[in-house]
Amino acid sequence: MTQGSTAASELVGLSEIRETVKRLPEAVQHTPLFRSHGLSELLGTNAWVKCEMFQPSGSFKVRGALNRIASLTDNERSDGVIAFSAGNHAMAVAYAARQQGIVPKICMPAHAVQFKVDAVKALGADLELVEGDLVARVHELIDEHGYTLVHPFGDREILAATGTIGVEITEAIPDVTTVIVPVGGGGLISGIAAAVKLHNPRCRVIGVEPSTANVMTESLHHGSAQTLTSAKSMADGLTAPLTTELNLAHVQAFVDEVVVVPEEDVRSMWEATVRATRLAIEPSAAVGVGAVRDGLIDVAEDRKVCFIMCGANTDLLP
Amino acid sequence: MTQGSTAASELVGLSEIRETVKRLPEAVQHTPLFRSHGLSELLGTNAWVKCEMFQPSGSFKVRGALNRIASLTDNERSDGVIAFSAGNHAMAVAYAARQQGIVPKICMPAHAVQFKVDAVKALGADLELVEGDLVARVHELIDEHGYTLVHPFGDREILAATGTIGVEITEAIPDVTTVIVPVGGGGLISGIAAAVKLHNPRCRVIGVEPSTANVMTESLHHGSAQTLTSAKSMADGLTAPLTTELNLAHVQAFVDEVVVVPEEDVRSMWEATVRATRLAIEPSAAVGVGAVRDGLIDVAEDRKVCFIMCGANTDLLP
Repeated sequence: MTQGSTAASELVGLSEIRETVKRLPEAVQHTPLFRSHGLSELLGTNAWVKCEMFQPSGSFKVRGALNRIASLTDNERSDGVIAFSAGNHAMAVAYAARQQGIVPKICMPAHAVQFKVDAVKALGADLELVEGDLVARVHELIDEHGYTLVHPFGDREILAATGTIGVEITEAIPDVTTVIVPVGGGGLISGIAAAVKLHNPRCRVIGVEPSTANVMTESLHHGSAQTLTSAKSMADGLTAPLTTELNLAHVQAFVDEVVVVPEEDVRSMWEATVRATRLAIEPSAAVGVGAVRDGLIDVAEDRKVCFIMCGANTDLLP
Repeated sequence: MTQGSTAASELVGLSEIRETVKRLPEAVQHTPLFRSHGLSELLGTNAWVKCEMFQPSGSFKVRGALNRIASLTDNERSDGVIAFSAGNHAMAVAYAARQQGIVPKICMPAHAVQFKVDAVKALGADLELVEGDLVARVHELIDEHGYTLVHPFGDREILAATGTIGVEITEAIPDVTTVIVPVGGGGLISGIAAAVKLHNPRCRVIGVEPSTANVMTESLHHGSAQTLTSAKSMADGLTAPLTTELNLAHVQAFVDEVVVVPEEDVRSMWEATVRATRLAIEPSAAVGVGAVRDGLIDVAEDRKVCFIMCGANTDLLP
């Protein structure tokens, strides 16, 4: 693991994460974490699931959104916030903003999952569906209105918030040997990996992304944060077309490996994970299980493997 | 609540249940129990879920099956065991017997859910699909082969085992005010109600059964254990066509009310429960949530309501 262009001193560390544990509302901490009999049978290991999918807004994103919005200055708050997202971050910002009495501007791609579009509308956000370049449109709106961006994965407050998940895992299963995390833009793994590795350097942290939305693998390869020209996947929660230098630096510093799963296998990974866990997850949450099932991650030496069930926002289930 | 033909001294009590807590394997105790944000929102109450659906064999039935088979004499064990069931008890007996090195005879109705038939086969049981009278066929086989019946809900060991679920609930949420339990033949509610009521008489215990499989309501009405000529429901786990005097006596002694939900509403109850809880349950597990949603159970005065997610064996999900 080598260091990128972000200095080690700029990484989000344990003290920042522990401060966030104190600040985050109790209602979004301590999501269920338990050994799954079915998953353990499927994978031939001792498999645990961290159920962020049960969060308000249906994904882990609510931790970061609440933490980031709580950190706004009065001026930022009165000028308004904006977020862009394929869905889970949009839902989380809409939820968190509503909790704090703000109506956020939310930009989603026109091809976003209908379930997530409907949810953002229902939470009362000011929604805009964007046909072309999502990020360009967001910056246009920021220039025009002076909005503050609630970044989907690159803000320190987001990383410190996802770090609280790592704290919960190491507290509940101190002898966990591997933590497997789905990767989109890298916000989830950046925080979890910091918390886990700084607590126990011998625990492996492995990221998984789909072959058709592999911005982290590309960024690791190039040694700098890349932007993909296209990022689409059945695992729509992982389709961020970009990452940031902060996320990349965290992955370089704290992640053992980022594994790529073939897009054409995501459906079967999702079906197998729902059958084995009996959790009504979205496809994004299944790529870690799929990677182990298909031999892309070897868990033969593991005592306890923890999978992050990152979200459950899908209309594919009843 | 009046007493039926089973004397109070014959009911399964707390000491028998607590002995069973000590005897049951740790692996099937302490299933996840947590507050569901989505369900609490849907129902406007503080809703908790007891996830028996995560058990080996996919339902609570494994507790009773393991306990009953462990109690067999050497002679009973060598002569073989038999069970009849629409599915969940069949799967549990097949699983528990295999754990203890026995191949059980299992009779299932010919119209049983394919998922459950396949699972029983996969567990290596000696399966027979019965077109006509299931119970008559089982007694024919017992007369012929000297099998011991592992009753789906009427044995003391079954009630003591389902009672351990009640112990776990009262230990984890001492201030629970209502526990809502799906009812088929009554094995689940008999044990839970005894454990909960003998621990805290003020906590309500409410049963729920479908209108087309309402043997407990009929039995309460007649004051004796009835057998229905027909019991069919989308909630196939609740289609026991009969109950026993022991189950009825437990319901009379410990259950506040048994509520009937219209069969035609079960699908919508199931869909709403999966959406709200993000648990991939079978329809049987949804009737309690449905009864509250549709105003058949009033929870306005409740502090904490606990729903038993009894099973997850269905091929209706991916």
